[in-house]
Amino acid sequence: MPNPIEFYFDFSSPYSYLASEKIDAIAAKHGRKVKWKPLLLGVVFKTTGAAPLTQVPLKGDYSRRDFARSARYLGVPFNLPEKFPVATQAAARSYYWLHDQDCDLARRFAHAVFRAYYVDGRDISDPATVLELAAAAGADRAALAAALETPEIKDRLKREIEAAMARGIFGAPYVIVDDEPFWGADRLPQIEMWLESGGF
Amino acid sequence: MPNPIEFYFDFSSPYSYLASEKIDAIAAKHGRKVKWKPLLLGVVFKTTGAAPLTQVPLKGDYSRRDFARSARYLGVPFNLPEKFPVATQAAARSYYWLHDQDCDLARRFAHAVFRAYYVDGRDISDPATVLELAAAAGADRAALAAALETPEIKDRLKREIEAAMARGIFGAPYVIVDDEPFWGADRLPQIEMWLESGGF
Repeated sequence: MPNPIEFYFDFSSPYSYLASEKIDAIAAKHGRKVKWKPLLLGVVFKTTGAAPLTQVPLKGDYSRRDFARSARYLGVPFNLPEKFPVATQAAARSYYWLHDQDCDLARRFAHAVFRAYYVDGRDISDPATVLELAAAAGADRAALAAALETPEIKDRLKREIEAAMARGIFGAPYVIVDDEPFWGADRLPQIEMWLESGGF
Repeated sequence: MPNPIEFYFDFSSPYSYLASEKIDAIAAKHGRKVKWKPLLLGVVFKTTGAAPLTQVPLKGDYSRRDFARSARYLGVPFNLPEKFPVATQAAARSYYWLHDQDCDLARRFAHAVFRAYYVDGRDISDPATVLELAAAAGADRAALAAALETPEIKDRLKREIEAAMARGIFGAPYVIVDDEPFWGADRLPQIEMWLESGGF
C-alpha cells in the first residue's frame, strides 16, 4: 500500500474547501488514501507575513471573483460567507479529537463543516455550530463539548501546526504526495499527473 | 472580430514566461489575438506590499520547485537563472518602442527576451543584451539604442504601468478576456473554458 497523501487545510480557506471536494476522489483513482490535517492559517501567516487574500490591496476584489469562478470551473457549490474569514480553532480541535476515535466520522465532520460554511453560510467559528455538526455526523456531543475545554485538545492542534510549519507549510490547501509538495487548489491537475506518472 | 485578449507580464516573472509560451495558441484556437503588455512588477509591488516569491519566508523554496515543475507540466523548457529576479526596464521599454513600429517584430523580440533569460540564462537586465536580441529579431539596433536614452520611452512604460494598476492589476501574468481578469499561469485552463463557453 503506497503512502497516504497529506492534505493540510484551514476550514476558513475557500481554496481549501474546493480541494476538499476533490482530493479523496483523485487519490482513490490511484489507490491512495488521504490524511486530512486542519491547521490555522492565522498562526502560519504570523511567520510568513502573509495576510488573508481579501485584505490585500487590489488582490481582494480579484480574489472574491476567483473563488467563485474557480468553484464553477470545478463544479463545486460555493457562496462566500458574509463573515469571512473566521476563526476555526473549535472546528480544527474537534477534528483531531474525533479523528482519534474514528477517522470516518472525522471525515464526515470535516465535509460538514466546510459545506456548512461555504454552502449554507453558517458561522463555523461558533463552538455551538461545531458541536451541532459533530453530533449530526454521529459524534457524542457532550463528550466533545467537555473535551473542547481541556488544555490537551488545544495543545494537540498547536503541535500539529508547529509540525506543519517545520515541514515548510506556508499556506493552504497544501498537499504532500510522498515528498512532493503542492500548494493551492489549482495544483490538483499536477497532483493527478504526479500520481499517474510517479513524478515528472 | 472579437476583442483581443490582453496579456500583462514582467519579463522577469517565471509564470509570465510559462504563460507567454501558451497564450497565443490558446487565443488563436478561439479566433482571438493577444495584446502583449510588459510591466514592472517592482513598481506594482510598491502598492500591494508584495515581494518576489523567492524572497518570502518558507514560500521561497517551494516557489523554486514549483516554477520548474509547472514548466515540466506545461512542456516548456525552463532553467531558473542564477541572477533572479532582474530589472526589466530596458526590455519593457524596448518592447513598446518596437511595437509602435511593427507588432510582429515586437512579439518575436518578447519571445527572444523570455527565452534568453529562462532557457539560456542570459542577463536580460543588461541593455546590451536587450539591444542584441532586438537586432537579431530584425530591429534597427542604433535607432533603438538612441531611443532608450530619451525621456519619451521612459514615460511610455510609466504610463502603461499606471494604466494597468488603474485597472486593478496586482501581479503577473494577468490576462483579461473581455472584462474578465485571470491571474497566474495556472488560470490558463479557466481562460480556455471561458473562451470556449463565452463565460461560465
